Amino acid sequence: MMNRREMLKAGSAALVGAATATTEAEERKFVSSSTVEQWDIFEQTFTGPREGNPFLDVWTQAVFRKGYRDVRVDGFYDGNGIYKMRFMPDEPGTWTFETDSNIPELKGRKGSLQCVPAKSGNHGPVRVRDSYHFGYADGTPYFPFGTTCYAWVHQTEDLQRQTLEFLRSGPFNKIRMCLFPKWYQYNHGVPPRFPFQRRDDSNDYTHFVPEFFQHIEDRIQDLRALNIEADLILFHPYDHWGFQEMPADVNDRYLRYVIARFAAYRNVWWSLANEFDLMRKKSSADWDRYASIVTETDPYAHLRSIHYSRAPYDYSRTWCTHASVQDYAFDKAPQWRVDWRKPVIFDECMYEGNINSRWGNLSGEEMTRRFWLCTVAGVYGGHGETYVDENEIENDKAILWWSHGGTLKGSSPKRIGFLRKLLEDIGAQEGGHIGLEAIEPVYYLAAKRSSNQAILWYFDFHEPSYYDFPLPEGARFKAEWIDPWQMTVKAIEGVFTGKSRIKLPGKPYQAIVFRKV
Amino acid sequence: MMNRREMLKAGSAALVGAATATTEAEERKFVSSSTVEQWDIFEQTFTGPREGNPFLDVWTQAVFRKGYRDVRVDGFYDGNGIYKMRFMPDEPGTWTFETDSNIPELKGRKGSLQCVPAKSGNHGPVRVRDSYHFGYADGTPYFPFGTTCYAWVHQTEDLQRQTLEFLRSGPFNKIRMCLFPKWYQYNHGVPPRFPFQRRDDSNDYTHFVPEFFQHIEDRIQDLRALNIEADLILFHPYDHWGFQEMPADVNDRYLRYVIARFAAYRNVWWSLANEFDLMRKKSSADWDRYASIVTETDPYAHLRSIHYSRAPYDYSRTWCTHASVQDYAFDKAPQWRVDWRKPVIFDECMYEGNINSRWGNLSGEEMTRRFWLCTVAGVYGGHGETYVDENEIENDKAILWWSHGGTLKGSSPKRIGFLRKLLEDIGAQEGGHIGLEAIEPVYYLAAKRSSNQAILWYFDFHEPSYYDFPLPEGARFKAEWIDPWQMTVKAIEGVFTGKSRIKLPGKPYQAIVFRKV
Repeated sequence: MMNRREMLKAGSAALVGAATATTEAEERKFVSSSTVEQWDIFEQTFTGPREGNPFLDVWTQAVFRKGYRDVRVDGFYDGNGIYKMRFMPDEPGTWTFETDSNIPELKGRKGSLQCVPAKSGNHGPVRVRDSYHFGYADGTPYFPFGTTCYAWVHQTEDLQRQTLEFLRSGPFNKIRMCLFPKWYQYNHGVPPRFPFQRRDDSNDYTHFVPEFFQHIEDRIQDLRALNIEADLILFHPYDHWGFQEMPADVNDRYLRYVIARFAAYRNVWWSLANEFDLMRKKSSADWDRYASIVTETDPYAHLRSIHYSRAPYDYSRTWCTHASVQDYAFDKAPQWRVDWRKPVIFDECMYEGNINSRWGNLSGEEMTRRFWLCTVAGVYGGHGETYVDENEIENDKAILWWSHGGTLKGSSPKRIGFLRKLLEDIGAQEGGHIGLEAIEPVYYLAAKRSSNQAILWYFDFHEPSYYDFPLPEGARFKAEWIDPWQMTVKAIEGVFTGKSRIKLPGKPYQAIVFRKV
Repeated sequence: MMNRREMLKAGSAALVGAATATTEAEERKFVSSSTVEQWDIFEQTFTGPREGNPFLDVWTQAVFRKGYRDVRVDGFYDGNGIYKMRFMPDEPGTWTFETDSNIPELKGRKGSLQCVPAKSGNHGPVRVRDSYHFGYADGTPYFPFGTTCYAWVHQTEDLQRQTLEFLRSGPFNKIRMCLFPKWYQYNHGVPPRFPFQRRDDSNDYTHFVPEFFQHIEDRIQDLRALNIEADLILFHPYDHWGFQEMPADVNDRYLRYVIARFAAYRNVWWSLANEFDLMRKKSSADWDRYASIVTETDPYAHLRSIHYSRAPYDYSRTWCTHASVQDYAFDKAPQWRVDWRKPVIFDECMYEGNINSRWGNLSGEEMTRRFWLCTVAGVYGGHGETYVDENEIENDKAILWWSHGGTLKGSSPKRIGFLRKLLEDIGAQEGGHIGLEAIEPVYYLAAKRSSNQAILWYFDFHEPSYYDFPLPEGARFKAEWIDPWQMTVKAIEGVFTGKSRIKLPGKPYQAIVFRKV
C-alpha cells in the first residue's frame, strides 16, 4: 500500500510539476512541461493565501485546452497555503491550461502538459456501453463484479492493508465505499479522521480537514492500481456526527470539494447515497440539487447513480447513468432495463454471512445463485459479506467485510470470480454488444449477446434430463456444460444449430453456454 | 384393491339392502331395515324400464328425512334396467326416505335406514375449518398434503394397483385426478373405457357407459379406504375425443350424473377443472353454470374449487370453498387468504422430476422447500412427480406419477410426509385454530397457530448464526430445531418467553418450532 504522496513521486512525473518550492515570481511565469499518461492525473500546485478561511474565501479554476476542446476543472484548497488543480487528460497530445480565481496570485497562471498514450493496464474510466453494459474508455469491456466495504477507509492502517490484499487476489473490480464515517450495528468506533474540524463534539462546517480527503485519495489510488472502481457513496444515513443533516450550503460545498479533489481519478464513480430514502431530512429537491452539482461539476462525467432502501428511485431520470438497486426481484430486471434504458446493477441483493439481520446471512450458494440470476437477466450483481464469530459479537469488535473490509471468509467470492471470467471470456469474442440480454420467452433463464456470439442458459432449481435448446438457425455453436459451484467447464461434443437436444447433468443450478463457431 | 362390488358385500350391509333380486311387487312395499355407518354410503337399487333411453327419459330422486331434516338426492340409471339412489347419512339414528320419479314404478317408494356412529378411521368428509384450514366432519384436523395423478384411473389394472400401493405407504392424503381420459405429452394411449358410448370415433352423448363410472367409483372407494381425498377434476383441456367441447346440455347432464353417482362418497372433492382457462370454447358463463349445478345438486356440499393455468380465478366467488392455485408466488399467499377469505392450496407449484418441461423438473430439494414455503405462508402445497428415463421417452411408454401413477422415485415425498406429521402434531395440541397463520412483519418466514400454541420459523436460504425470536410475552415455549431435509428434530435446551436468542445451526433451509408449554 503506497500512500498518495509516495505515488506522486513514483508514478507520474506531472504530479511533481508544480512549484511549491519555487518563488512566487517564478510561479507566475511557470509553464509546465510535465508529461502525464492518458487518464492519469496531472496536478498543478500553487501557493496562496493561508490567512482568513481559504475554504470559503477563495475559488480557483483552470481551463485545460486541446484543439477546440475546453475542460474546466475546479481547484481546491489543500491546507497550509497550498492550492491544487487536478486534471485527467483523456487524449494524448499537448494540453495547455490557464487558471482563474478571485485571488490575483491564482489567476491567469498558464502552463501546458504532454499527455502520452495510456500504458498497458490503464484502460481509462468506465462508461456505459451498448446501453445496458459498461466498457472502459479504451474499448476494453468492463463487467462490474462489485463488493461492498462501506467503511473500510475509516479503519486502522493494518486493516486497510489487509483489505487491499484481499481485493488484490479477489474477484472484484468495483467496491462500494462511504466517504463519511459510519455508525451502525457493528460500527460503533470513533473514526481516525473527520471530514470537518471537530469542536466540542460538533462539526465546524467551515473548515474541511484536508488530511481526511488525502487519506481517501490514497485509497482510491490503491484501488486504481488494482483496477478496481471506487463507487464513492457521497451521503449515507448511518450517521452519528451530523453528516446526514448538514445545512444545504455545506452539502453543496462538500460535493464541490469532493469532486474537485477526486474527479481526476479515473476509477471514481459517484453514488449520491446509500439508502437515500432513510435520510428523512433530505427532500427530493435536495437530491435533485446534489445530482445537478455532481453532473455539472465533474468534467469527466463519471458514472452516477443513487441507491435506495425501500423506495425505488426513478432511474429513468437523465442525471443517473445506471440503476443501483436494492432488490431481489431478478425476474423484473429485464423489464427495468427497458423502462430505464440503462444498465442495472443489483448493488445490494443481500449478503453472504451469518449475522442476525435478514439481509446479512445468505448461504454462499444463494449469493452465487443471485449473481447468476443477475447475469441471465442481463444485469449485474453486487457482493457483500457479513460473517462474524460469536466472541466478536459480544464486544462489538467484529470485523465484517461488508463494512470494515479485512478478510473474506465466504464461499461465494471464488464462484463470483469464476462467473466474471466466463463473462469476460464471452464478451471478448468479436462482434455485437459485449454484454448479455435476457431472452424471452424461454422456459429457463437465458441470455445472449445481441449478435448471438454467445448464449447462456442457467437452469436454477430445474433439473431436466435434457433440453431442446432453441438455437438460432444458420449459425453454428459449440457448447459447454458449466457447473457454477464446482467451477468446472466441460465441452459437450458436437456442433449445434437450430433446435438442439442436449442431455443435461440431472442436478440443479447448472448452466450451458453456447459460443458461435 | 377391492372392486366396488366386493366392497358392497364386505363393507356396509346397507349396500345390499336393495332388491334387485326381489320381485317388483315386493319392491313396491319394500321398507329398508339396513344399517349404515355414518358418512358411509346407503345405496337403494330399483329395477325399472330399460327400453327407450333411460339416461334421457327417466329422472329419479329421493328425499331422506330425519327429524326436521330433508336431504334430496338424485338417482341415476346404472344400465340393464337398474336405477340407484345413494345417500351418505351424516347423523346417527333412523332416516326414512321416499322416492320420486317421472316413472310410476320408481315413484313413492319408501324405506328407512339405521345410521350407526362412524367407526374408528372414518372421520367423515373434509370441510373448511377456521376460515383458512380444513378439518374432518368429526372434528379431526385435516391438513391437505396432496399429490397429482391426473389419469391414473385410465391406466391398466396392474398400474392402478401399483399406484394404490404407493399411495398406501406414501405421505399423501389427497389426490388430484381427472374423470375424463387424458391426451397430452406422455399420454397418447387409448383408455380402456370411455364415459360415453363411442360410435365411429365419435361420442354418443345420449348414452353414458355405466362401467366407466363404476370403475371410477371403485377407485374412489379404494382411496376412501386409505383415507385419501379424491379431488375429482370434472373438466380438463388435455383432450383428444371431444370431452372438453361437448354441447351445453351434455355438460350439464354429465355433471348431474357424476354428482348423483359420486357425491355419497365422503372423500370426494369437486374441482370444476384443471387449467380451465385453456378450454377456450368455454365462457365464464359456462363455468358459472357448472358451479351452480355442482353447488345445487350435491346435497353434502363437498369442497369445490377450480384450477387455472395462467389466468388466476377470482376465488372470492362464493361458490368455491377454497382456492386451488397454480402459482409460485408463495409470498403473496398470506394476502390471497385475506382477499379471498378462504383456504389456499397451491395445487400446482411445479413438480419434482427431470422432464423437458419447465414445470416438471424441480429438484427434490426445491419441491420440499416449496411445501415449507406454503406452510409458513399459512397455505398448503401440492405435489407431483415427473421422472422419466430416456428409453421410456423414446417410445412414449413412460410412466410418470403425475399422470399415470405407478411408483414414486423422487426424494421429496418422504420429506413432505415429515412436514405433514409435524403439522398434524402441532395442530393436535388443544386450543385455538388448528392451522398456521403467517406472522408479519418478521425478518424470516414464520407462521403460528392463532393461539400461539405453536410457532414455526423457516429460514429458507438464510443462515444466521443466531436469531432473537420475538416470542410472545407471558407464554412459555419449548423449542426444537428441525432439519427438513435430514428429517431430524432436536430439542433445544431451555424454556423460552419473550425475545429469546437461540443459536442456529449455520446452514440453510432449517426450521425452528416453538410449542407452548
